[in-house]
Amino acid sequence: MLRLPDAFLDQLQAEDTPHGDLTTIALAIGERPGRMRFSARAPQVVCCVEEAVRLIERAGAQVSAYCRSGDFLPSGALILEATGPAEALLLSWKVAQTLIEATSGISTAVRHLVEAAERGGGAVVACTRKTFPGAKAASLKAVYAGGGVPHRLGLSDSLLVFPEHRVFLGADTADALRHLKAACPEKKVVAEVINVDEALQMARIGIDVLQLEKFPPEAVAETVRALSDLPSPPVLAAAGGVNAGNAEAYVRAGAKILVSSSPYWAKPADVSVKITADGPGHAGHAIPS
Amino acid sequence: MLRLPDAFLDQLQAEDTPHGDLTTIALAIGERPGRMRFSARAPQVVCCVEEAVRLIERAGAQVSAYCRSGDFLPSGALILEATGPAEALLLSWKVAQTLIEATSGISTAVRHLVEAAERGGGAVVACTRKTFPGAKAASLKAVYAGGGVPHRLGLSDSLLVFPEHRVFLGADTADALRHLKAACPEKKVVAEVINVDEALQMARIGIDVLQLEKFPPEAVAETVRALSDLPSPPVLAAAGGVNAGNAEAYVRAGAKILVSSSPYWAKPADVSVKITADGPGHAGHAIPS
Amino acid sequence: MLRLPDAFLDQLQAEDTPHGDLTTIALAIGERPGRMRFSARAPQVVCCVEEAVRLIERAGAQVSAYCRSGDFLPSGALILEATGPAEALLLSWKVAQTLIEATSGISTAVRHLVEAAERGGGAVVACTRKTFPGAKAASLKAVYAGGGVPHRLGLSDSLLVFPEHRVFLGADTADALRHLKAACPEKKVVAEVINVDEALQMARIGIDVLQLEKFPPEAVAETVRALSDLPSPPVLAAAGGVNAGNAEAYVRAGAKILVSSSPYWAKPADVSVKITADGPGHAGHAIPS
Amino acid sequence: MLRLPDAFLDQLQAEDTPHGDLTTIALAIGERPGRMRFSARAPQVVCCVEEAVRLIERAGAQVSAYCRSGDFLPSGALILEATGPAEALLLSWKVAQTLIEATSGISTAVRHLVEAAERGGGAVVACTRKTFPGAKAASLKAVYAGGGVPHRLGLSDSLLVFPEHRVFLGADTADALRHLKAACPEKKVVAEVINVDEALQMARIGIDVLQLEKFPPEAVAETVRALSDLPSPPVLAAAGGVNAGNAEAYVRAGAKILVSSSPYWAKPADVSVKITADGPGHAGHAIPS
Amino acid sequence: MLRLPDAFLDQLQAEDTPHGDLTTIALAIGERPGRMRFSARAPQVVCCVEEAVRLIERAGAQVSAYCRSGDFLPSGALILEATGPAEALLLSWKVAQTLIEATSGISTAVRHLVEAAERGGGAVVACTRKTFPGAKAASLKAVYAGGGVPHRLGLSDSLLVFPEHRVFLGADTADALRHLKAACPEKKVVAEVINVDEALQMARIGIDVLQLEKFPPEAVAETVRALSDLPSPPVLAAAGGVNAGNAEAYVRAGAKILVSSSPYWAKPADVSVKITADGPGHAGHAIPS
Amino acid sequence: MLRLPDAFLDQLQAEDTPHGDLTTIALAIGERPGRMRFSARAPQVVCCVEEAVRLIERAGAQVSAYCRSGDFLPSGALILEATGPAEALLLSWKVAQTLIEATSGISTAVRHLVEAAERGGGAVVACTRKTFPGAKAASLKAVYAGGGVPHRLGLSDSLLVFPEHRVFLGADTADALRHLKAACPEKKVVAEVINVDEALQMARIGIDVLQLEKFPPEAVAETVRALSDLPSPPVLAAAGGVNAGNAEAYVRAGAKILVSSSPYWAKPADVSVKITADGPGHAGHAIPS
Repeated sequence: MLRLPDAFLDQLQAEDTPHGDLTTIALAIGERPGRMRFSARAPQVVCCVEEAVRLIERAGAQVSAYCRSGDFLPSGALILEATGPAEALLLSWKVAQTLIEATSGISTAVRHLVEAAERGGGAVVACTRKTFPGAKAASLKAVYAGGGVPHRLGLSDSLLVFPEHRVFLGADTADALRHLKAACPEKKVVAEVINVDEALQMARIGIDVLQLEKFPPEAVAETVRALSDLPSPPVLAAAGGVNAGNAEAYVRAGAKILVSSSPYWAKPADVSVKITADGPGHAGHAIPS
Repeated sequence: MLRLPDAFLDQLQAEDTPHGDLTTIALAIGERPGRMRFSARAPQVVCCVEEAVRLIERAGAQVSAYCRSGDFLPSGALILEATGPAEALLLSWKVAQTLIEATSGISTAVRHLVEAAERGGGAVVACTRKTFPGAKAASLKAVYAGGGVPHRLGLSDSLLVFPEHRVFLGADTADALRHLKAACPEKKVVAEVINVDEALQMARIGIDVLQLEKFPPEAVAETVRALSDLPSPPVLAAAGGVNAGNAEAYVRAGAKILVSSSPYWAKPADVSVKITADGPGHAGHAIPS
Repeated sequence: MLRLPDAFLDQLQAEDTPHGDLTTIALAIGERPGRMRFSARAPQVVCCVEEAVRLIERAGAQVSAYCRSGDFLPSGALILEATGPAEALLLSWKVAQTLIEATSGISTAVRHLVEAAERGGGAVVACTRKTFPGAKAASLKAVYAGGGVPHRLGLSDSLLVFPEHRVFLGADTADALRHLKAACPEKKVVAEVINVDEALQMARIGIDVLQLEKFPPEAVAETVRALSDLPSPPVLAAAGGVNAGNAEAYVRAGAKILVSSSPYWAKPADVSVKITADGPGHAGHAIPS
Repeated sequence: MLRLPDAFLDQLQAEDTPHGDLTTIALAIGERPGRMRFSARAPQVVCCVEEAVRLIERAGAQVSAYCRSGDFLPSGALILEATGPAEALLLSWKVAQTLIEATSGISTAVRHLVEAAERGGGAVVACTRKTFPGAKAASLKAVYAGGGVPHRLGLSDSLLVFPEHRVFLGADTADALRHLKAACPEKKVVAEVINVDEALQMARIGIDVLQLEKFPPEAVAETVRALSDLPSPPVLAAAGGVNAGNAEAYVRAGAKILVSSSPYWAKPADVSVKITADGPGHAGHAIPS
Repeated sequence: MLRLPDAFLDQLQAEDTPHGDLTTIALAIGERPGRMRFSARAPQVVCCVEEAVRLIERAGAQVSAYCRSGDFLPSGALILEATGPAEALLLSWKVAQTLIEATSGISTAVRHLVEAAERGGGAVVACTRKTFPGAKAASLKAVYAGGGVPHRLGLSDSLLVFPEHRVFLGADTADALRHLKAACPEKKVVAEVINVDEALQMARIGIDVLQLEKFPPEAVAETVRALSDLPSPPVLAAAGGVNAGNAEAYVRAGAKILVSSSPYWAKPADVSVKITADGPGHAGHAIPS
Repeated sequence: MLRLPDAFLDQLQAEDTPHGDLTTIALAIGERPGRMRFSARAPQVVCCVEEAVRLIERAGAQVSAYCRSGDFLPSGALILEATGPAEALLLSWKVAQTLIEATSGISTAVRHLVEAAERGGGAVVACTRKTFPGAKAASLKAVYAGGGVPHRLGLSDSLLVFPEHRVFLGADTADALRHLKAACPEKKVVAEVINVDEALQMARIGIDVLQLEKFPPEAVAETVRALSDLPSPPVLAAAGGVNAGNAEAYVRAGAKILVSSSPYWAKPADVSVKITADGPGHAGHAIPS
């Protein structure tokens, strides 16, 4: 289980409440004992439960978790329960809730892609590095929780030859790519291609993985056929426009990898939070006249 | 114009390329001169152009910007053009593109809300603090670029009495809220209410702004009528489920403020990037066989 | 109770002892058991006891606290007691002591302002954003501990129209300010004015709070009279030169808010620290010849 | 000249305006051209002019400085002048002003101590490590600007044997201190003593510098006499309660070093800021009715 | 060319001179003009010239660079020349010199490994993630400058199955590894093996790269022979004890990749720094009596 | 015992595994229980055991330490033992091992210098500020663990007059240095000299410590003789080329301080790590066919 660092949690809390919850302070209710329960308001693959627990504990409450990142939760399932002074609960409430909701939205969307891929026979769901700026670590945790993998962490750890690299190679592209394979023998070479001809050219050069950019499923199938005579054809990855609606078709067409950024913009999962006061005379949130 | 700090830009670049673009390095093309153009592939209210320029400049290229955050761009409009060594362009490309796309998605969605509100007669579009975790400053820049305002920055700067605060008040709620108003005379007191009765009770206590949580437009109108006899009725804000589809109705019903998180999960705006080599023999990205 | 973040405590300790206490190391006394007691050498409203405890614990000792931030302590009252190895006590001693002394100085000064205001009938003590550079969070914790509130956190969270804003408005000031009120319906509009005429003009425009800059108390009273005919006159805040000596007069003159930076430069509170060795032969700090 | 790091300036600006100046944004005056002049409202040894320049430049204006940290300024002297869009001026104004005022207050107080010491025949003014928590680097810049030196940077860089160290030494204090001198031959050994007897004991052991804690000037003179027979008597430093009022007496009594924290709590120097609009129709800050 | 971030350079400078060069300040020589020249005292592959330039510029001097990271310099070659006030030169001198020396030591050692590999017929020199703690980015820049590549950036970006992973697999190792290949089709699977039998077992499972841990060159050759019958044998990497003395033998034995940490502990390269005063009367560093 | 801060440990872990151990995740073995033992593969003065424990605990395992930084360990001695889920062990393994190995290499080298100095009659081993860039705090902890001291922390805390300072002094060097001594009476003045004549000149001025740069031992002895007539000759420090091979000779020649950077480039100490699975069926790391 990936663990988001303390400094990230501190950043979230400090951005939201640099100097405490003014409303709680001005109402002078901070020390009253209370209870806070998070539960799933809709089915979801939950994420960042561990971080929510730490956020609430750092604010000064005790927390019990009832599930872990990656668990599928039916509607109504309890996620966590916290007890402690009101200021601890009210301080961490929305920060913890938003973190779970945002990342569980991604996890759930990844899971839907994985399931669609399974219906087509199975493929790897690889999520891109195009996360919301500033949200990379949390987003990757959600990708793993949903059953996907990161496509690549960034530019420094893997080889992906874009057409934008190839414009700088000129006439010596084939040689350059063969040299690239030799220069980095511990890594597969991936190349983005934009039509079947390019795919065939790249496959002949010996590229390991072809990333088929914005190919419709039928073009993926056509690529499979075009490459079928090669002794060891490259692995095909579909990228650009892949989503839960077409994932099955892509896999049936022959894609072994589905490259997608779409889960990063999934709607947040819906998490219900209920805060109650512990002790006599604080039942519910009716407002006495 | 809000300015995102250097440290944030450095974080984005370092998360994506902690140790350079391996592909560029291994292809040994880093020093070849090139040109990179960003343009709008679809109409959008563009955001973070200034930060994209700084990202690309910090990577080592020269950049000219052709618009500013908050500008509406028709499809095809040029955003910026950069020239410099290939390594500078390839290093900053996706980081800059993703930053513009993600924030322009928000700006554009905010603008749609603003326009819908204007069709209803006009209201303030106030976006919540529930941004994607880690993305707060970029998201707020986008809110301003779209014509909205932040609802509140967080818990420390404003007074919003949730039902979750009120459960700790017990029988003395009215007194406590009157005390709150007196204790913070430089701030308006906002209270979230969940039905018309609560709204009326809160208004009688003298709350300045009522945040009507998940009221349908007709319940907003009913609230307006219920409060119409009061000498100085509170300002009404609609919250929970507000979107571009129903914003006009909410405003017609009497909401003066539309509180929404929905723009934070808007689809990213579509920005096209074209990289070309400068100099003979590097025409286009055709792959020679 | 506001909680200063771990990173701030680590910064304080690291700035003071980046590589340990050289004297303790060179004397080879680090492992000898000891005891350290902090107590109030003069009456004070104590602050940052919680952070002092954390600083000493992080250095490796056990600590018991005998009071909390915001408590009034008479002279001689015990604040905390720590036991542990000498290196833990000697490492954290002055950092913890200075933090308590500096912030308790502020808390105590705020409390004096609050009490002076109470003698005049009561007013809110609002401390400005002009804290010592780098000391904002600690200073605001002290403001709350003393019974004050922050005037505003900064420029992003509230509306304060300075004359320096108004020079850019030209002939359309009144319209601009009415527009401002409408644009930010969740916030009160505060305006700084420098004489009674400006106050009256601003009040007629409908400004919510007037910040009377460097008005003597009699000018505050004159402003009250000048505004008395308005249907809903603004709240008056006295700013510029307010201190414990004149606070009562300002409140009697009609100020409902006292805006002050003066507590930030209060003398530090006096905290006595006594360190003793635990075990035979280490009684007192007499130096044998 | 010490240079405070970019990250510190960014922290100050971000704490004050994490998301821009809301008032400027809502008034839509950000792009209007303006001019801002800082000048001394009272005589002062100015500090952090260089950092103020950088703060204002980073906000987007052009700045000319008319003095440097450490310069003595008579009342009315111009410190700096900036021109640029209103948003740049209004954003950086108070952050830059507060930084100059707070540090120039320290510089001026240090200078007063130095001058008092000169009247007594001259001594080194050494300011302690007890700066306001979080304000260390800015405070030390001010100490240098005023003509003082840091007493010690912290525990890691120098040897200062407090009585609180000695309680852990037991019967072997003299041996331990002789060992200490040998173990750190590149450093002088300083010891804090609380009476003349301790001073004499420490001097006989060969301590290089004696820090006379809370000795009145006459006790300093008595110590000088008590040590006068020693072949190479230690340097004497007066500490605890030293201020501009008694500094001359301490130096006349024989103190060669004045150790003081008092400048850190000096009142801020008074800096006047005048902002004007550039261009027709924006003359002065009169408010049209 | 990798670019080390500003924050790293600021950290280095601040750790060395948090509050200026005390000697320069106390001698009052900071403003005198001077000149500083860095040159190679011994042949070396130079590294971090770009960062040295930035360090010196940030301190306040002008700098001209005469070479780039990765250049081979003969003894005596000029690296850079700076002019400016003495305080800028004396502040940045050793920080910049140490950075060049430490990283050029690595670069030069990597180059020696690469040349030794070339004498054996050529192989990739891959440096491990076991850099000196805290020195990762600078070390990787040096690896690239020397002609090597990073073996892997860390645990998150690549698949390396250690025996320490396999102890948790039990009887199902082969299945687990086949599953691993399928689960991560964009990455090669590397496995560390400790003898020829393990190598053969892993090769039959289809592992892409075998990392032969502490195999002498003859055992590498034996492994090549043992795998020669396989249809597509894995790439062999020699690891553990590889150095410039045995690299040629490893390559001749069949290693295509040399995995090494040894360059990280190479002696620093020797860089001479000469500082002179500009202007009359400051010739050389003779000390007048 | 110096304590490296949490943020440094988090940096090390995050640089190595920003998003978990991909191999462990993809093999789905993360939750299996295991055991990890660190022991000395060669005799060493161990360092950073405390930080290794914290790294492993932060990853999620329980750890028992069997020694402390500064202990001498014979070959085979157990350093620590950890139990917990495989993911915790595999995540922290190499980060913790590398930290111990790198710093224990320094500690052991420092100890060798100390022992060599003792054979010559004893001298202080002072390690320079020229640590590997980014590794300062860890390196200084190792210096202390080995029995050395830091020569100086940097430029801000001590006075070391280099020839490079003196070129800016011109004809008034002697006066300037006498002034320097007076200006900083709490610090010794150290001067670097490059021949016996310079040493004599500096000694006559009254410099406290002479740093003899690249003097062979016989030149140190000659310097001792040249200074022997002075009433209070300076302490002599040998610097430049000092190592365990010549340290004894330097001390016999009269050096009381050995200034050296050489331990920072010592080979890492050799630490063996053994990971085993807890529970049936996971015995050893044999690979079943």
